[in-house]
Amino acid sequence: MGFFWSERLGRPASEPPSSGLTDRDKSLGRERAPHLVRAELEQRVRRVRAATEALCAELSAEDAALQSMTDASPAKWHLAHTTWFFETFVLRALPRFRAFSTDYAYLFNSYYEALGPRIRRDARGLLSRPPLAEVRTYRSLVTARLLELIESGQGDWDVLGPRIELGLHHEEQHQELILTDIKHLFAQNPLHPVYRHPPPSRTETAPLPVGYKAYAGGLLPIGKQGDGFVFDNERPEHLQFLAPYALADRLVTNGEYLEFIRDGGYQRPELWLSDGFRWVQERGIELPLYWQDGGENTWVTFTLAGLMPVSPSEPVCHVSYYEADAYARWAGARLPTEAEWETAARDRALQCR
Amino acid sequence: MGFFWSERLGRPASEPPSSGLTDRDKSLGRERAPHLVRAELEQRVRRVRAATEALCAELSAEDAALQSMTDASPAKWHLAHTTWFFETFVLRALPRFRAFSTDYAYLFNSYYEALGPRIRRDARGLLSRPPLAEVRTYRSLVTARLLELIESGQGDWDVLGPRIELGLHHEEQHQELILTDIKHLFAQNPLHPVYRHPPPSRTETAPLPVGYKAYAGGLLPIGKQGDGFVFDNERPEHLQFLAPYALADRLVTNGEYLEFIRDGGYQRPELWLSDGFRWVQERGIELPLYWQDGGENTWVTFTLAGLMPVSPSEPVCHVSYYEADAYARWAGARLPTEAEWETAARDRALQCR
Amino acid sequence: MGFFWSERLGRPASEPPSSGLTDRDKSLGRERAPHLVRAELEQRVRRVRAATEALCAELSAEDAALQSMTDASPAKWHLAHTTWFFETFVLRALPRFRAFSTDYAYLFNSYYEALGPRIRRDARGLLSRPPLAEVRTYRSLVTARLLELIESGQGDWDVLGPRIELGLHHEEQHQELILTDIKHLFAQNPLHPVYRHPPPSRTETAPLPVGYKAYAGGLLPIGKQGDGFVFDNERPEHLQFLAPYALADRLVTNGEYLEFIRDGGYQRPELWLSDGFRWVQERGIELPLYWQDGGENTWVTFTLAGLMPVSPSEPVCHVSYYEADAYARWAGARLPTEAEWETAARDRALQCR
Amino acid sequence: MGFFWSERLGRPASEPPSSGLTDRDKSLGRERAPHLVRAELEQRVRRVRAATEALCAELSAEDAALQSMTDASPAKWHLAHTTWFFETFVLRALPRFRAFSTDYAYLFNSYYEALGPRIRRDARGLLSRPPLAEVRTYRSLVTARLLELIESGQGDWDVLGPRIELGLHHEEQHQELILTDIKHLFAQNPLHPVYRHPPPSRTETAPLPVGYKAYAGGLLPIGKQGDGFVFDNERPEHLQFLAPYALADRLVTNGEYLEFIRDGGYQRPELWLSDGFRWVQERGIELPLYWQDGGENTWVTFTLAGLMPVSPSEPVCHVSYYEADAYARWAGARLPTEAEWETAARDRALQCR
Repeated sequence: MGFFWSERLGRPASEPPSSGLTDRDKSLGRERAPHLVRAELEQRVRRVRAATEALCAELSAEDAALQSMTDASPAKWHLAHTTWFFETFVLRALPRFRAFSTDYAYLFNSYYEALGPRIRRDARGLLSRPPLAEVRTYRSLVTARLLELIESGQGDWDVLGPRIELGLHHEEQHQELILTDIKHLFAQNPLHPVYRHPPPSRTETAPLPVGYKAYAGGLLPIGKQGDGFVFDNERPEHLQFLAPYALADRLVTNGEYLEFIRDGGYQRPELWLSDGFRWVQERGIELPLYWQDGGENTWVTFTLAGLMPVSPSEPVCHVSYYEADAYARWAGARLPTEAEWETAARDRALQCR
Repeated sequence: MGFFWSERLGRPASEPPSSGLTDRDKSLGRERAPHLVRAELEQRVRRVRAATEALCAELSAEDAALQSMTDASPAKWHLAHTTWFFETFVLRALPRFRAFSTDYAYLFNSYYEALGPRIRRDARGLLSRPPLAEVRTYRSLVTARLLELIESGQGDWDVLGPRIELGLHHEEQHQELILTDIKHLFAQNPLHPVYRHPPPSRTETAPLPVGYKAYAGGLLPIGKQGDGFVFDNERPEHLQFLAPYALADRLVTNGEYLEFIRDGGYQRPELWLSDGFRWVQERGIELPLYWQDGGENTWVTFTLAGLMPVSPSEPVCHVSYYEADAYARWAGARLPTEAEWETAARDRALQCR
Repeated sequence: MGFFWSERLGRPASEPPSSGLTDRDKSLGRERAPHLVRAELEQRVRRVRAATEALCAELSAEDAALQSMTDASPAKWHLAHTTWFFETFVLRALPRFRAFSTDYAYLFNSYYEALGPRIRRDARGLLSRPPLAEVRTYRSLVTARLLELIESGQGDWDVLGPRIELGLHHEEQHQELILTDIKHLFAQNPLHPVYRHPPPSRTETAPLPVGYKAYAGGLLPIGKQGDGFVFDNERPEHLQFLAPYALADRLVTNGEYLEFIRDGGYQRPELWLSDGFRWVQERGIELPLYWQDGGENTWVTFTLAGLMPVSPSEPVCHVSYYEADAYARWAGARLPTEAEWETAARDRALQCR
Repeated sequence: MGFFWSERLGRPASEPPSSGLTDRDKSLGRERAPHLVRAELEQRVRRVRAATEALCAELSAEDAALQSMTDASPAKWHLAHTTWFFETFVLRALPRFRAFSTDYAYLFNSYYEALGPRIRRDARGLLSRPPLAEVRTYRSLVTARLLELIESGQGDWDVLGPRIELGLHHEEQHQELILTDIKHLFAQNPLHPVYRHPPPSRTETAPLPVGYKAYAGGLLPIGKQGDGFVFDNERPEHLQFLAPYALADRLVTNGEYLEFIRDGGYQRPELWLSDGFRWVQERGIELPLYWQDGGENTWVTFTLAGLMPVSPSEPVCHVSYYEADAYARWAGARLPTEAEWETAARDRALQCR
């Protein structure tokens, strides 16, 4: 039986040393991906690798080197780490493999215990070397080797294919992190740097009134279904019983959240979990992350396009679990459970096909 | 719909200020307790209050005043806080109520936000005053008033009865804390104080081989069933689906845990959740809490009876969630979920009737 | 040549292990004290030991057990440590010596490295055992043995005499600490405990206008002069050149310090040393330690007699070096150097004879 | 009377707000510098500004942006701050002055309280913008304006001249910091970056035996003498009395320091000040900063030329006050006082003329 709740608390630090792969990645690689023809995989490698580089194309070497908090990593580190992943778990399996640099395992391993020691997480921002240009070269070479490998069909494809697919999903996760980490870094800078210019301004339209969509619940399958890639914490499929429930049919807006703020939401202990209210009080939190008081009853928020007015019709974001929970209680609702959300999302995905 | 998962993450910091009671306690008091006749309640008040005092009878004023870490409280504080609970939530509702001391609300409130400010948790060990003797007087007077109240039948018994019952369960929770907190305090003392002398030594008998008892699972009721007292996080009753599972028929012993240690359990990342392995490494953990190396391949452990050899046949205790999880993985098993455990425990309780 | 500035930065952690005594204490014991007849020493032992006990006579076991910050120690610890000092450095030299308790060296050694490991300083407040009563017994027995020893004249009196004298000065230092540490502990308690009742209220009289007394300076002897006891950082006598200077002829009053506060003293960076202004800002300091705003433009201060109004005519106290320095700059003066103060104090002592 | 001891503890946080300049810098500018003809000043401006840039010429934008600890600053910050100093204290006094950027005062002010708020010191390493290239442009423009100003002779030269001279000395201080901060940053990098290649290897020659040079002491002038620039903590000249003393005629070598280490120097409390021994124990210090065990009884040290063997004949460096003090005690000597050193250094400077 699996550990399907384990993602709430952490995950196994690594597989036994006897295994070639480690961590969750190995289990992810266990399944064959017969539905993937090599040509399709080649296209995806090109697309995903290029997308990561596009996200960093406008970053200077300085932008890419800094780490604004322990939980964030420099963009340069993300660029190298996702590359090290393919080098280590795919290319290393080939005959005549030679590592790009023997130092990179120490620098760009994240938390794969079985692969040896690695730099402290909070020291990733102390690496002015290797320079960004060298990391870009590293990316190019590894991508090229990867494409050659796919074309050649060399190696045990039942192992390599799923590993490459895993690497692509892994890299897509880091694409998200690149954006959140750059946003956090730029938010610390009094110059309010602009990562990318905003889309042409749209007419602000009032959101529709919120409605609730009902779900019947019942004994439902949760987790992996069918073929295709999933992460290990989505497996195995299992049954879960849900009582009937209803879910709002659109996201909560900034405007609605502002009503919560104006109603004293951050000052009213009865709306919060105990831990959450302590968190609010110890840190003096009164607004969502990145919001600032703009004076005269206005609010601004730091975005990837710099400081912008808070738009009342856009979805509220960068609120913590505690804030979301307190808002829900104030609004007379509650947050959905993971299984409720998964069921609703799957239902919606079916409708969208 | 209730927040039946909320106990995993915290709980609402308080009820709305309009309510008389706060926090989880109010909800606990919502149910009537018609099955409790007043005479029975009187007996329970006597018994529970006396049991708390018996736990502290051998403690000196010094023992009862110290706080060995922020998560622990001095025994004196437990004695007073459980009394303040009855004074505040039961006696205060009476006409002509006068508080024993106007300072006590500040000193002995724990985390009831709506009842005003209170001393910082980590400063509970800075209170040499009020002296232990005064706190004992406070206990006697409040117990006496409580018994008078029960005998008199004054007040709104539909409210007061359940609150008294809640107060008794609350006090029983603090009885557990008194023992764990005194153990922690005494464990810091190089003199290894003895809280109570051990029972006469028993013959050490080898534990039975472990077996597994199978459970069929299915769609099962979880949480409150029938009348009687429950805490709010045991409500409401709801259905949960469990796949078939099996549970060990006895607890893991110190001897078995020692095999895990000798097998390098604390050094093998593949056995641990990531968070857990970081916890182990950052704190240099190699043994359960209170265990010490006794030299020559022996172990001793600090107990309420002072330093004692680790008995291989007794259940292992003072292991964290992370340690239990790693042990289970090493042993080829996993920890049961809360619902699996509740179902098995209920089953066993039925058998024991 | 000595290290006569060393007291600014710390002092040698211990003497070489080959020596019987350690730390500064040995050097202190180097000088003979021929001027002390044994009878006189006996009287002083009685007086000093009794004075320490008188300071603690009204403390409960709880008062004496708590440690309110790492830099403070419980009164019980002071009572035991000063006793351990005589036991270790005087009685241990006698034939047939037996320690009161083999644990006490670990518990009550302060920082004598050569005498073995000792309890962490910040854990002195975790010792509910030994109880205060046992520590009082320990004191009585060691005092009695000490008096017997003096009466008997046994042992090498050239060594023991100076050590006893050193122990008496050492104990007088701890008498000061008992008072400052109890004050700090009681100040944390919302009940504002009273250590001793204040003297009958005196008529508040306005202080005399401040005058300045001139000193000619010159090449002057600093440090030990003549016979008699001194601590090691008062030796050796040496010459220091002082330019002419003048010193205020009375202490700064609370009333004068209040003018500094009202003039924005704590908010004006130009009055402070850089380090001091950072200290003020990081800790939000706006008043001397123990002062509180009493409302309506009044101030109260926590004293050994509990909370009292700030008397404008009394000397200001509990100000840090930084605050004293900033006040002096505001007042158009500066703090005296150590040598200026020593010279002025010696001059005054001569006048007082 | 001056505050000639103030450098031990900090210095006034700023001058009174009525003054144009702030902090110690104003007082430094108080003296005229009639000995400086403008042509000479122009040469020095060119030389000092170019020297700073030469130190950073080989640094990449990434090298120059990182901050490896709170006490260090990125090289980019040093480049900009020293420029901001001239812009603020010299160019701002000119008619038609326009700041290069209104943001720079916030970013590149160090601790001049009277000039408004500034970025937290430990956030200097979060500034990927402005880019290094922009800071270099800023330097060029400010240097050019400065040279124009000197050539034109505009402005109140009695004020501007001394301020420029102060700015040059200030910049030379930051040249030292650039080197120490880059060394610290590179030392954190597992790639051991090389800042500059070592000089061609010299034959290692054994150092001469140490001798002691005697000084007669007496009543001696300390601090500023004659014309010329001094920092404020070198003023005013005053007399200090020194007893006769002797000073080693060469620096302590790595080889000698290794003997101290091998003799258990770091483990022997009797050699250390109490504070120093606590520092050693709490941090597990066993070697000077940047030294590492090279295996087989050898030591390596991180230098600006990368990791290098410890040369026994070179002077030991990167030892703290505590280590120097402990070494001196071990060697049967003591550290000189500031006045002893100043007198000896002045004497030597005279000899070298």
